[in-house]
Amino acid sequence: MARVLSREAALARDRADPLAARRERFSLPDGLIYLNGNSLGPLPTAVPGHLARVIEQEWGRGLIRSWNPPPTGAGWVEAPRRVAARLAPLIGAAADEVLVADSTSVNLFKLLWAAMRLRPERPIVLAEAGDFPTDHYLAQGLAALDPRRQLRCVPAGEIGAELNERVAVLLLSHVHYRSGARHDLAGLTARAHAVGALTLWDLAHSAGAMPLALSAWGADFAVGCGYKFLNGGPGAPAFLYVARRHQSAAHNPLQGWFGHAHPFAFSAEYEPAPDIGRWQVGTPPILGLAALEAALTVFDGVDLQALNAKSQSLAEVALAWLDGPLAEAGFELLTPRAPEARGSQLSLAHPQAWPLSQALIAEGVIVDFRAPDVLRLGLAPLYLRHVDVYDAMARLHRLWTEGRWQAPRFAQPLPVT
Amino acid sequence: MARVLSREAALARDRADPLAARRERFSLPDGLIYLNGNSLGPLPTAVPGHLARVIEQEWGRGLIRSWNPPPTGAGWVEAPRRVAARLAPLIGAAADEVLVADSTSVNLFKLLWAAMRLRPERPIVLAEAGDFPTDHYLAQGLAALDPRRQLRCVPAGEIGAELNERVAVLLLSHVHYRSGARHDLAGLTARAHAVGALTLWDLAHSAGAMPLALSAWGADFAVGCGYKFLNGGPGAPAFLYVARRHQSAAHNPLQGWFGHAHPFAFSAEYEPAPDIGRWQVGTPPILGLAALEAALTVFDGVDLQALNAKSQSLAEVALAWLDGPLAEAGFELLTPRAPEARGSQLSLAHPQAWPLSQALIAEGVIVDFRAPDVLRLGLAPLYLRHVDVYDAMARLHRLWTEGRWQAPRFAQPLPVT
Repeated sequence: MARVLSREAALARDRADPLAARRERFSLPDGLIYLNGNSLGPLPTAVPGHLARVIEQEWGRGLIRSWNPPPTGAGWVEAPRRVAARLAPLIGAAADEVLVADSTSVNLFKLLWAAMRLRPERPIVLAEAGDFPTDHYLAQGLAALDPRRQLRCVPAGEIGAELNERVAVLLLSHVHYRSGARHDLAGLTARAHAVGALTLWDLAHSAGAMPLALSAWGADFAVGCGYKFLNGGPGAPAFLYVARRHQSAAHNPLQGWFGHAHPFAFSAEYEPAPDIGRWQVGTPPILGLAALEAALTVFDGVDLQALNAKSQSLAEVALAWLDGPLAEAGFELLTPRAPEARGSQLSLAHPQAWPLSQALIAEGVIVDFRAPDVLRLGLAPLYLRHVDVYDAMARLHRLWTEGRWQAPRFAQPLPVT
Repeated sequence: MARVLSREAALARDRADPLAARRERFSLPDGLIYLNGNSLGPLPTAVPGHLARVIEQEWGRGLIRSWNPPPTGAGWVEAPRRVAARLAPLIGAAADEVLVADSTSVNLFKLLWAAMRLRPERPIVLAEAGDFPTDHYLAQGLAALDPRRQLRCVPAGEIGAELNERVAVLLLSHVHYRSGARHDLAGLTARAHAVGALTLWDLAHSAGAMPLALSAWGADFAVGCGYKFLNGGPGAPAFLYVARRHQSAAHNPLQGWFGHAHPFAFSAEYEPAPDIGRWQVGTPPILGLAALEAALTVFDGVDLQALNAKSQSLAEVALAWLDGPLAEAGFELLTPRAPEARGSQLSLAHPQAWPLSQALIAEGVIVDFRAPDVLRLGLAPLYLRHVDVYDAMARLHRLWTEGRWQAPRFAQPLPVT
């Protein structure tokens, strides 16, 4: 049995952690170890005060005037671009290539339709079998709208071989929600381009957890989620990315007034905004935008390489337990071993994943379960300490060896998550 | 010149107003007269505390667990239906016919596409020329997706004559954003049905301002806005209505995971929820839903007939000024005179509408301008007093007679509204 890293060694890593002070920017319940930031990020301390100000001052006092730019207003009308500009460096994009709008799913619909239309003679949307369902559901829906199109799902290892001149769009999650496996975004984008296909990347499980360089990697389109590693709050507005070279040709099928070149001219004909603004649809959700805007301040001055290094360092603590004391417990690591091949989570398959997850939650370690048998450990590097991961794994080990997860109450399924 | 109602008479109406106490449920800046609730409703006093609790307790403490139903969670997953159930009585619908989701524009796209598909052989979406642009932009976009379809816009008076067996969907705002004119929803729905067409009503300017009876009036589909007379905050989530008889056949083209029958089964194939839930797309915006939920409590126990009577009574105060002291000032009333033919606003065309609106705002009367020449006075009956309308009109009269609106600063266009 491999030796586990000691608790003292985990504490030493925390003392040496250049990001350690960022934890203070989050409101985390005492005593709770939160390994679910890949599903819902915790509350940044900057959010409540900012939201209260937006609600009481901007809405309550400013009223309709707050739509106007400063100094007469609070700049609400610019919020989708302003928050996007704050987010852009986290994904390696220029500010004018990013917009915060709608949900990830709605943005996927818009961009997938647009990308398909840029390759009108090619029938196939190529995707990975078992990727996050909403991506495929939306593609299935688009195929139903346009019977010339079809969604083709293949295992991850076959994607390269399936890229050919019939493929219009390669639609992939950068980091897989279930396994935590990370695709080579730059490499696959280059292979797609080599056969003339476009790429649409879903960054839900990578934005805010690792450095990304969409522009440098040549990505065409991307979407992502505001409420996971970006900590924007439950159901936060999502983001989308359109490479500058596609901005004039790519067309939003959801032609709403906020995407118009002159929304307040109330003209009869739709004229898309000349820039990233055309991807807006309806009135932007100001409260959600405000929460996300405040939440993103936790990244101010963060070195994304350091963020990635911290994430890998946290994973090492967990992996040492899995290779050591938990080696005989029957966990199968679904996440690749190589640091560059995974995101900021570890996924463990186990026949008893459900009661184990419930027992861990009862002991104050919030983990995530994905049916039928996967335990996901989200390792968000901005607020988790090495000692948190150590303690979580120690509790998992104790639960396992003592058999306490077998209590009948942990076998009851929860209604939702 | 007709005699204006006296200020004392306005105060007397306020003393007799059964809804007078509702004003206390809003946070309104002292001294400001807010005639723009048809564009952005003011802040209900219930909102800040509720939002703070959702943010600090449900998000901050409950974290991911808050998605679960009570008692283990805060019931976030049910929020779109729960808030809809609170809204349903305001539009005369059953709770299971309404959902709160996305923006009005996105909901229009979903429902218009679905309604067209229920009439596959009919090419026409019939609409009113000059109706709110987003409705037409979205219909234009759908026509581009499906070249067999076309948007046909005719003047209001020709709608009846244009209803024929080539019309798939009649798409109309119940109350016109610009003129305040109200369509006969029940009558036009019956005429549409008589030729086999479906109806999609945009309730942006009527929900929360008057009694509505969608089910009794036979409406097929409807959408509406959360941030106008419903006071849900800037960019609040919108709502949609699908008559129960259409719920199994009507299909959402935006097939997102939250509209799946079993979202957390993560199955590969899309299976729409059997009920109103299929109109969800992505993860619901919990902060926006929470604000709207708290905001809707201001309607608890409100008699919607009394609401409508108050709205008309407020309009009488303004009309007396327009017929009296302002008769020679050159205002053209765009809004119909008959109470049943208008919504809860008065729209005045005037060549100097822009500087007049800016001068009024500078004097603490927040009104709305719509290019090129329309001044809109929103008469939200829950919080406006008759004396507010009196004082607003008196200030308009004084500005006009003293010529103070001619100051150069009022001629400068504001960037946005």
